Formats: sequence, structure tokens, C-alpha cells
Amino acid sequence: MTDFQIGAFPERACSNLVKIRERHPLIHNITNFVVMNFTANVLLALGASPVMAHAPEEMEEMVGLSNALVINIGTLSSPWVESMEKAATAAANRSIPIVFDPVGAGATRFRTETARKLIHLARPSIIRGNASEILALAGQGTRTRGVDSANSTNEAASAALRLAREIGSVVAVTGAEDFVTDGTVSVTIGNGHPLMGRITGTGCSATAIMGAFNAVEPDAFTAAACALVAFGIAGELAALSNPGPGTFQPLLLDRLDALRPSLLMERMQVRPS
Amino acid sequence: MTDFQIGAFPERACSNLVKIRERHPLIHNITNFVVMNFTANVLLALGASPVMAHAPEEMEEMVGLSNALVINIGTLSSPWVESMEKAATAAANRSIPIVFDPVGAGATRFRTETARKLIHLARPSIIRGNASEILALAGQGTRTRGVDSANSTNEAASAALRLAREIGSVVAVTGAEDFVTDGTVSVTIGNGHPLMGRITGTGCSATAIMGAFNAVEPDAFTAAACALVAFGIAGELAALSNPGPGTFQPLLLDRLDALRPSLLMERMQVRPS
Amino acid sequence: MTDFQIGAFPERACSNLVKIRERHPLIHNITNFVVMNFTANVLLALGASPVMAHAPEEMEEMVGLSNALVINIGTLSSPWVESMEKAATAAANRSIPIVFDPVGAGATRFRTETARKLIHLARPSIIRGNASEILALAGQGTRTRGVDSANSTNEAASAALRLAREIGSVVAVTGAEDFVTDGTVSVTIGNGHPLMGRITGTGCSATAIMGAFNAVEPDAFTAAACALVAFGIAGELAALSNPGPGTFQPLLLDRLDALRPSLLMERMQVRPS
Repeated sequence: MTDFQIGAFPERACSNLVKIRERHPLIHNITNFVVMNFTANVLLALGASPVMAHAPEEMEEMVGLSNALVINIGTLSSPWVESMEKAATAAANRSIPIVFDPVGAGATRFRTETARKLIHLARPSIIRGNASEILALAGQGTRTRGVDSANSTNEAASAALRLAREIGSVVAVTGAEDFVTDGTVSVTIGNGHPLMGRITGTGCSATAIMGAFNAVEPDAFTAAACALVAFGIAGELAALSNPGPGTFQPLLLDRLDALRPSLLMERMQVRPS
Repeated sequence: MTDFQIGAFPERACSNLVKIRERHPLIHNITNFVVMNFTANVLLALGASPVMAHAPEEMEEMVGLSNALVINIGTLSSPWVESMEKAATAAANRSIPIVFDPVGAGATRFRTETARKLIHLARPSIIRGNASEILALAGQGTRTRGVDSANSTNEAASAALRLAREIGSVVAVTGAEDFVTDGTVSVTIGNGHPLMGRITGTGCSATAIMGAFNAVEPDAFTAAACALVAFGIAGELAALSNPGPGTFQPLLLDRLDALRPSLLMERMQVRPS
Repeated sequence: MTDFQIGAFPERACSNLVKIRERHPLIHNITNFVVMNFTANVLLALGASPVMAHAPEEMEEMVGLSNALVINIGTLSSPWVESMEKAATAAANRSIPIVFDPVGAGATRFRTETARKLIHLARPSIIRGNASEILALAGQGTRTRGVDSANSTNEAASAALRLAREIGSVVAVTGAEDFVTDGTVSVTIGNGHPLMGRITGTGCSATAIMGAFNAVEPDAFTAAACALVAFGIAGELAALSNPGPGTFQPLLLDRLDALRPSLLMERMQVRPS
């Protein structure tokens, strides 16, 4: 169970951010084609070191070099599932944290079933999805509409609790507000900005950032909350100049790079849920 | 045959833009690795909802959720052709409009033959290519030089007419000026800016935007013209500050997001051809 | 052996830049998913014409249309290795220059062995890597940490000399300073900016730019040095306004597009090594 304490969290989030900048943890991503470039740049801006690799021949070795494994099923296909399974098994054997993003679960049977199979195999430390994806993973989905959520975070809260208990994972439901639970302790995070939903890959980036925090912070619940606070604040700061969605994207990377503990302290919005 | 009327077009283009913003049509893209991120951001900026998926196992279900299917052969390989065929068949069975982009047709036999096979199978509502690609599809190509056109729009006009009649598709040839024909009615569109040719993925984006318009506008000819006008005007507006090609790209997304019916009315350049 | 003369180099670099803008050489890239979009935009900004294609069915024809072939193993998998081999063989048969980027060599056996196999088959005119990758290729690697270098350029200099002699290639080691050698003649290049290491794909872009220069400049040593000078100067100019890494990326493309011979003459830093 998490040792999360709301009073100690701000300090701990700051300290974890500093650790990422000092250690440059290597984050192995098996992710989708749409967001690979942006995810790599997000991780670099945060201070982590990304690697994208998916060949089954090198999964075990690459995972062995990594400090966290991020699996994202956004542009899923059978040969990649094989690599995801190999990587997940290797990470589990070495106690390397796994963060899982069930992009589009609920949209098609292939996605829902693959996602369910992978979380049962990988027992990720964190599962992050939008409300529709988490509802689908908890077996409670109406059909997701593509990869965008058709449900609100609130609607998925009880499904998240159930899923967290079933898998033994921390579950994060992201949306206008974010909800993080390990099945017992839960928090709501208010950071972020609507522009983050106007560009592709912010959900996937949040997942990758969870990997970076989980690489330096063994408590997965704390790591998930740190990631959502850090990324949400970078988004708020990037939105200050009221950019369009196109110029928002590079600004988001700039703000992530310029994120300082003092900014986290000032702006974080975390409340028990 | 199209019910396009040049006098009614401006009003209709505006109304279609508003519909995309209201309905957020789901656009299923099977497209190339180079442009996936940009295409997704272009569709989001326009107001549509993109999904990129290519696993044969989920083609039928994903197409079934979608309001249009965009097939683009930019980084073609045999396993993806199988998925394109499955998706096209599923779309045809459900009367979901298909927009096709024959990237690099004419450059290699594999591309030309695959493109010809796919348009005969899919009977797309719209085919969009540069002059060299359309000449190649119409069986009249000299060899395309890679993925860039070696011919002008004018040179491809009669090939476009022939192809439109052969396949029963609307054919759009894009370049310095754009030409749209259904084999009987034809228009030339003067919107756009040379900077659009200095970044990768603008042709592919135009195709994807045609998918978004065709999702709300059943007349494929009108949808193709709407897309070229809307994207061209966004490009003109993004170029106003005389950016380099790097900063032009995010500005293009900003202008697409900020596009309003009044801007369409003011700037559209469509003439019978 | 290279006909490189340090006194004649500035003039020649300028003349090669002009040739790229006049001829728009077609550069065939078999590269990784993370950097495809950025690489294409880098080549376009420089004045070259990029094509990304990997289907084995079209390798021979596509290579036949191209003025240089760039092979990059960043997101390697077995089916792509087959295409790389076909493309390399076709390029060798037609004396089309091959530039090779051993991304992540040393990180896993699969990468190191594939890279070694490919350079023995392809005999690239240029091999560009970071210090860890070049050490690994020269059989002298400790394990690379993911895709980022754990070694300095200096540490890899003698390995680069050895590799250049073994394969008969020009070898470029890039880092804070860049080192180029053909095993006999060597230079150090001081252009560039630390921000180039804060975004993904700058190493891969340098390799692609070497392809563009090698397409117009038959002396591979000169081509490699031209590319590093040109890209490094664009990076310095983009960094002048002190951007974050997010806004640095589009600025880098702008500066590459705006690069003029006079800027090369003013800023290039090349010294015998």
C-alpha cells in the first residue's frame, strides 16, 4: 500500500523532480507511432533519457538497462504485442516499474482484450487512461469513441477503484480533473489546462512522465501524482500567453524544461478524494 | 454526380466548418509514419477527432465507429496493405466515405500497383494527389521523382478527369493551384501558400481534412473543395508574419484552430475550370 | 583517400550548400519512427528532397531514383533489416553514397551485431554516431546507456580511426565537439550548441544532412564536415534568442532554411585534429 501523505507530498514532489534532473533515468518506451517524437521530447525536457525500442530480439537487454518501462497500445499490432509481453516479463523479473497506457481500450475488442491480457501479465505499477478507457478495462465500458473519452473522470472513479484492487496497480484517470487511486487511498488533481486536450499525445506524455517519476520514486501512487502535477503545471504555464494549439506544443516543452520546485510548490492542486 | 453550385459554395463551406466543430467527426487514418503526429494535430485543430489504427484485427470495428476513412500509402508495406483493404471493404459496406492519398504513386511499381488496386477496391469518394501521382494513377505517368511532384497541376488536369470517370471518384490535384473534378464538373482553387510545400505532410493533411469535411458533407466534390479552401486559407494566414518553415508549422495549426466562417468568406478563391 | 584541404574547405562548403539548393537531391531515408517527421523537415529546410520508404518490394527502384541513401537503426526490427540490406546492396551496385547511423549500437547485442553486419555489407561512405556507438562498432564498447552517449568524443577518437580503416568509411563522432576521420586525415568541428542535445533527433538529422551533402559532394570526408558545420551553425543561430528546447526545434528549421554561404564563412570552426 502507498505511503502517500498529503502533507508530505509537496516536498516529495519537488525532491523527485530534482532526482530526475540529477539521475536522468532511462525510460524504455514501447509506444505508438503518433506520439513517439513528442514523448521523447517530453521526457528529455523533463530531464529523463528516453529510448524507443520494440524488437523482440532486444527487449530483455533494453529493459535491463532501463529504470522504467512504459507500454502504450496506441497503434497496436500483433507483432508489437509480443514485444510488449517480452518487455513486461523482463521488467517484472527485475522489479523495474511498468507504466501502462491502454489507448483506445473499449473502442475495439482487440484493444480491450490486449490491454486486459497485458495488465494481467505485467501487473503495472501504474495504469493511466481516460475515463472511457478505465471503464473499459474494468469491464464496465460502453464503447469508447475512438481514442477520446466519452465519459467524465467522475464516472470512472469507482471503476478505477475496482481495477486498482483487481490488478494491484495504481490507476490514474485523467481528464479535466485527474483522479489517482490505489484502491484505498485516492486523490484528485486539479492542475492542467484545456489546451492539453487540443493536441495529440498529452495523455501518452503523462503516462511517460509517470514512468520517469516512478524510476526515481518507488511509491507508484506518489509517482503518478507527481507526474500529473508536474505536467499539469507545465501545461498551465504554457497556456498563460493564450497560444493556439500549434504554438502551445513547443511552449509546453519549454515550460517542462523550466519547471522548478518553487513552481510546483506554488501551483500544485492536490486534494484527498 | 455532384450537386456543387459555385454560388452556393461559400455558404456551404462555412456551414460544413461549423458542423465539424459541432460534431467532432471521428476520422480513421491509416497513414504514413512521417505525418501521423502532424495529421492528428491538424485534425484536432480543425475540430475533428483523429484515430490512427492499422491492426487487421480491429479494422472492421474501428471503421464502424468512424465517420470517414483516410488511407495514405506514404510508408507502404505489404502488411499495411492488407489492413487498408480490410478497412476499405468495411467502409464500403457501411457507406462510410473513403479518401485516398496515393503518396509516391509513379515512383515505384509497388506504389503504383498498390494504389491502383486499392482505388479499384475502395472506390474512394475522393482521391487527392500531386500532379505526378495523379498522372501515374491515370496510367500516364512518367516516373515520379520520389514523393514530390515533377509536373504542374495543369499537366494533370486531363488525367484527373479520366481517373475520376474511371473510378467514379472526385479527384483533387494539388499544387500551386488546386484542381478538383468529378469528371464532369471542375473547379480551380487558388488558396494556399508556397510555405506549405516547404514542410512535410501538408499534402497528407489536405487529404485528412477532406476526410473531415466528407464526414459532415455527403457531396464529395463539395467536401474536397471545402478542405482545400479551409487548409489553404489557414496556410495563407499562417504565412502572414513571414515565418521560416519551422515556425510556420505550429502557426498553421493555430490558424486552422482559429479559422472562422468569416475568414472563409473573405479569402476563398474558387473558380469554375 | 579524401582530397580534403583545410584551406579550400570554406569555399567548398559554401559551394556545396548552394548545390543542394539548386539540385534538391533526393535523399532516401530508412530511418526510425521517432525522427521521421523531423528528419524530413530538416532535409526540406536545407533544400534537399526527402523520401521515407522501407518496403522490400520497392527498395531497388526507390534507391535507383535517389542521390543518397541514409540508413538509421533507431527503431530497428528484423523486417526492416531485410529492407536495409536490399537498399544497401542496390545503392552499392549503383555507386549511390550510403550514410549510416548506428543508433544505440552497444546498448543491445541485436543493435551492435546488426550495425556491424550492415556496415560490412554496405561499406557506407560515412558512419556517424555518438562516442559510445562508435566505440561499440569498433568492438571496444562498454555498454551504451540506451541511445545517449556515455563517453566523450575524445575517448572515441582512436576507435573512430580504427573503424574508418577497417570499413573504408569516413567516421564522424558527434558530441560537444565533433570529430571526423577517414583513418588518415582528421578534423575537429566546434560548431553546434548544447540545446541540440536537449531534443530528440538531432544526431539522426546530422546523419541525414550528411546524405544531402554527399549527394552533391563526392568526397565523403568533405561532405561529413560540411554537414556538421552547416547543422551546427544553424543550431548556434537558433539558440541566439535563448529558447527553451521546445521552441528551439522550429527555430532550428528556420535557421537551416535561412543558412547562407556568408553565415558558413563567418561562423565555421574546423581545425585539423
